Amino acid sequence: MKTNPRRNPLGIAFVGGRTDRADHIRSNEDLLAAQYTPAARLLRLSGLDPVISAEGNLEWGSLADAADDAELVFLGLRDGRACFAPVPAAGSTAPANPALWQAMATLDGDELATYGAARAMVDWHARHRFCARCGQPTRLAKGGWQRNCTAETCRAEHFPRVDPVTIMLVEHDDRLLLGRQPRFPAGSYSALAGFVEPGEAIEEAVAREVLEEAGVVVRDVSYVGSQPWPFPSSLMIGCHAYADHPALTIDHTELEDARWFSRAEVEDAVQAIERGEGGQAFRSPPRTAVANALLRWWVER
Amino acid sequence: MKTNPRRNPLGIAFVGGRTDRADHIRSNEDLLAAQYTPAARLLRLSGLDPVISAEGNLEWGSLADAADDAELVFLGLRDGRACFAPVPAAGSTAPANPALWQAMATLDGDELATYGAARAMVDWHARHRFCARCGQPTRLAKGGWQRNCTAETCRAEHFPRVDPVTIMLVEHDDRLLLGRQPRFPAGSYSALAGFVEPGEAIEEAVAREVLEEAGVVVRDVSYVGSQPWPFPSSLMIGCHAYADHPALTIDHTELEDARWFSRAEVEDAVQAIERGEGGQAFRSPPRTAVANALLRWWVER
Ligand SMILES: [Zn+2]
Ligand SMILES: [Zn+2]
Repeated sequence: MKTNPRRNPLGIAFVGGRTDRADHIRSNEDLLAAQYTPAARLLRLSGLDPVISAEGNLEWGSLADAADDAELVFLGLRDGRACFAPVPAAGSTAPANPALWQAMATLDGDELATYGAARAMVDWHARHRFCARCGQPTRLAKGGWQRNCTAETCRAEHFPRVDPVTIMLVEHDDRLLLGRQPRFPAGSYSALAGFVEPGEAIEEAVAREVLEEAGVVVRDVSYVGSQPWPFPSSLMIGCHAYADHPALTIDHTELEDARWFSRAEVEDAVQAIERGEGGQAFRSPPRTAVANALLRWWVER
Repeated sequence: MKTNPRRNPLGIAFVGGRTDRADHIRSNEDLLAAQYTPAARLLRLSGLDPVISAEGNLEWGSLADAADDAELVFLGLRDGRACFAPVPAAGSTAPANPALWQAMATLDGDELATYGAARAMVDWHARHRFCARCGQPTRLAKGGWQRNCTAETCRAEHFPRVDPVTIMLVEHDDRLLLGRQPRFPAGSYSALAGFVEPGEAIEEAVAREVLEEAGVVVRDVSYVGSQPWPFPSSLMIGCHAYADHPALTIDHTELEDARWFSRAEVEDAVQAIERGEGGQAFRSPPRTAVANALLRWWVER
């Protein structure tokens, strides 16, 4: 994955897309209607997955390729051309599988971000065909940036969902606290993470998650960087915090293990993963994970 | 509103609640079932609004006060006692009205945060009684931290929603860019803001919003602080950014006006609002708004 250092200084995957979301178009009925032309491009998807060309790029077709009854999301303008993506029959909240990661590996930073945004949008539509307020069908509106309830007595408006998630490096005595979930590959450890809940500031969510999962009290939470993550639509909010006391009380319903790793161990692991290998002490999350960017940031600062 | 400087250094409203969310209880059926006792407390609500005591505090009753068919949200533990809130008949996405602001004015930082979290939760339940995937009824689960579809063929799980919103101070030549929406009180200006969309990093959302609303290109976006905002459930992500060129192209479908204000003008406005007054150049957002905290942060740094 090549990323643009100016748009994306930490080299975070799914960041740095060049698509102009063109809000002035999608919020104007006439301008939007004028985009459905033979020149418009349609992102080719197989369900939620991208269709990759022989050259390793995203494949694009025209609106004529879409099924007659397909809902289309207006992604915005790329090189001045209107771009759309088709809503598939079914969405998914499952993590990306190895075949999908392999398919995405040849995409550059802009294409990966473009696919990620499109996937998050069409998946949301596929999983929100009914009104949560009244149970009646909803209909795509504003080029896909809204769904409206079709029931005359309700008319609720629904908007694409983004779930904020905190993910944090906790530091004590020049070591980092990392944990592993049972579903991780053998030897893999990563930053602790959890959803921001209603009524919480980012800093409060970080403190709660680390206390819940590892029994560690943190202070001085700071923000490092963020990532839109499309499996499904999360906003990963990367943070750093300090702990004064390293004793761990691991919540084994969430984590299989959690440990403190030294700077040398972290440095070794992030170097090793570039060669596709595990490090001496643990295996780092891959480049595509914001946790990898956080670890590189910590090693380099 | 009194806030705790240790828990809440920027003095942000709705931050710093002392409720222990007690995830180990709500995620364990037996532990959760054991909380529905005569000692448990029920937050008194009038619809979505708080019921305030003669002393100016939140009023609490017991579970016996709840209607027989009421859905209850487990808020967590306060002073070791289980606390719940009742889901009202209807939710609301409307902003808080002046009467509600007046009612909340006597609450301290902890109580305001407690009410905000409870309101965001019960409002979500009231607006999500049906499954967005299949249209069938959903049922409260895990003490209110989940809703499950009742249709055997679906069984979708739904989680409370938090919408990330960026709100940003844009700086050029020691001046700040602030805007006003038509619904603002006369003379009021505030930080520009907008929802983070699927596929965007925080920094990208900031840049897009400022470009869309004011035609200004920003650089060096940094994070300042965050606020959970319960009207309805948003996560306000407060940022700062620099602009090299001050020329404005205002989107009048979003903003009535936008202008650059000097440091002296901003300082005057945040001092004036403490006396309930407008400043010389503009009226500041009130203490309860994260924009107020951002302005104070900028003046003081
Ligand atoms: Zn409806
Ligand atoms: Zn369902």
